Amino acid sequence: MDGVLVQSLDEIVTNNLDQDQLQQFNRIYYGRTDHGELKLKESTPSACKKLNIQIAAYSFDADKEVRPPKLIKIGLIQHAIVLPTNKPINEQREAIFEKVEKIIQIAGSEGVQILCLQETWYMPFFLCTREIKEWEDFAELAHDGPSFHFLSKLATKYNLVIVSPILEKDEAGVWWNTAVVIDADGKYLGKHRKNHLPSVGSFNETTYYSPGNTGHPVFATKFAKIAVNICYGRHHALNWLMFAINGAEVVFNPAATISKFGESFWGIEARSAAAANGYFTCSINRVGTEDFITKGDKKTVSRNYYGSSYITAPNGCRTPGLSKSLDGLLIAQVDLNLNRQVRDKTGYNLTSRLEMYAKELNDTLSKN
Amino acid sequence: MDGVLVQSLDEIVTNNLDQDQLQQFNRIYYGRTDHGELKLKESTPSACKKLNIQIAAYSFDADKEVRPPKLIKIGLIQHAIVLPTNKPINEQREAIFEKVEKIIQIAGSEGVQILCLQETWYMPFFLCTREIKEWEDFAELAHDGPSFHFLSKLATKYNLVIVSPILEKDEAGVWWNTAVVIDADGKYLGKHRKNHLPSVGSFNETTYYSPGNTGHPVFATKFAKIAVNICYGRHHALNWLMFAINGAEVVFNPAATISKFGESFWGIEARSAAAANGYFTCSINRVGTEDFITKGDKKTVSRNYYGSSYITAPNGCRTPGLSKSLDGLLIAQVDLNLNRQVRDKTGYNLTSRLEMYAKELNDTLSKN
Repeated sequence: MDGVLVQSLDEIVTNNLDQDQLQQFNRIYYGRTDHGELKLKESTPSACKKLNIQIAAYSFDADKEVRPPKLIKIGLIQHAIVLPTNKPINEQREAIFEKVEKIIQIAGSEGVQILCLQETWYMPFFLCTREIKEWEDFAELAHDGPSFHFLSKLATKYNLVIVSPILEKDEAGVWWNTAVVIDADGKYLGKHRKNHLPSVGSFNETTYYSPGNTGHPVFATKFAKIAVNICYGRHHALNWLMFAINGAEVVFNPAATISKFGESFWGIEARSAAAANGYFTCSINRVGTEDFITKGDKKTVSRNYYGSSYITAPNGCRTPGLSKSLDGLLIAQVDLNLNRQVRDKTGYNLTSRLEMYAKELNDTLSKN
Repeated sequence: MDGVLVQSLDEIVTNNLDQDQLQQFNRIYYGRTDHGELKLKESTPSACKKLNIQIAAYSFDADKEVRPPKLIKIGLIQHAIVLPTNKPINEQREAIFEKVEKIIQIAGSEGVQILCLQETWYMPFFLCTREIKEWEDFAELAHDGPSFHFLSKLATKYNLVIVSPILEKDEAGVWWNTAVVIDADGKYLGKHRKNHLPSVGSFNETTYYSPGNTGHPVFATKFAKIAVNICYGRHHALNWLMFAINGAEVVFNPAATISKFGESFWGIEARSAAAANGYFTCSINRVGTEDFITKGDKKTVSRNYYGSSYITAPNGCRTPGLSKSLDGLLIAQVDLNLNRQVRDKTGYNLTSRLEMYAKELNDTLSKN
């Protein structure tokens, strides 16, 4: 059963249910009967069509309250690589830069204020090859590499916070899987290194780098307090929790994940985390197929990504997913007041009993 | 939009998609293209029809391996109260006993080995009334109350482990929301008291009892190591995690939850927990409407439960939900070897970094 037979789960459902059934389905599956579609500028759909990218935009409102609304506009970009993976590294990167710049331009013109790209967004996800030397020129300094300089200009131009997941090579030459946060003035604001590294069958990221040593930082950007839970970290509930404890209002989950591993969890993990922690979560996955011919044994390794990027509000309502195969830009206008409103309603913070869990975890660890 | 308009989400989808579409939908939404339906005894469907209860049965297999399969059969019962809530308490309880006994008889004849009932299963969920005195005769000793003696006999008769969520009154007269575990020989094996108590709007269980003081026990029953995450505890990821750390193979989530609060999370929280922790989760919710007229202000309080009980395997595959409105028995034959197989594949245990989280939680708590 191949994941690319349909564009998305949403398409199957939307095309086959009548209006009443669809409302029932949406109420349970998405958390609200309609998706709160957001109006785009008149020129946007045709600009997207020209670039062959999907665009979708939704809003998540909060109740009116004493405080003014805290509206921000979030954007997520999912995209395929452009050139074959055996082309020179500079060319591969430049081709992706060129495509992504056009998508960021649309995001900027739509007034997006915080944008997140997919995991190691400017390169193929070559980690499945288990080769290092052939690819090392994709690794770069977090605050002074090609992708930082490229995005810093666009951040300034569009008054845009950008989360840029990269392959980092630090000053000592050590690699990390890192998300760089660039503030809306184009300045480097900080970085977070991936806390949990997959070790799944023969796919083992510890071949390349170590688990992150940056804890759970929350970045006070111009528009919101944000954090980044990189890819496989979404499987760890404590990773999500610590970002909440540290004050995140929006947590991004840039990923590179294939159907075989867990497409059926994709729609529930980040959504469960949003509801449990009372913040917005933003899930971004790659699209397209990436083929590699390994140098040593000349084996072909192929990985197909299923896109389906989506955004979840703290009340568990989520947007439909982007396409499973197309490049896309997903926009959501969100009122951050919703975080507090939901937390006050659910009482999860009030009832979290963290002291009990800290003690039980300490006891467990001291026994092993 | 009323939750009782349809029997279930599954019904809408199954009746409207063609075979290919349904397979795509199931693959993503349920985690597998078909539901692995389990054959029932020939007499069972008609027996269920006579009692007007829904029956559904599925299996979750594991790969063949060196060890023999560890097959167990789990049963969940969801049911409505029988008599109006203003009838004498003994009569209300006896009427529920009578109905549930017939369902347990079917479970027994189908070879169910571990059965779990819904939260405070032998009474209406009167906690919404905020009255105490009027209802106190529903509270009972964990190891020596009417429900224990009733179920102990059935456990012995059918060689059946039973998880019995009750309203406990301990020997000092203090109330607790408790799950009693009765082993297959009919003996009291132990109890777990609800760790997290909802405090949602005017619905506040702390009016009645305190957060549980029994930690995260795992019960080595005759057939499997089990734990109980009672109702609202499902919103707390650490609650699920500690049961995993303590060795649970199956975690039951007996609940009494209404549509308004979080029907859209119901299908994702326990499922996310199963995938994150590598064990089976079993979600049970009440059905039907319970009306109360409070003695003081003569206000009518009404609560409608949406059923939708379901079971999730450690790989995130789940069964369809039971009906939103009918009494029902859900059976699953599961191979517990799947827990270890999935954990070995996903590597979540290997990559959990509990030391880091214990330290970060300690640091957080010492700052507050």
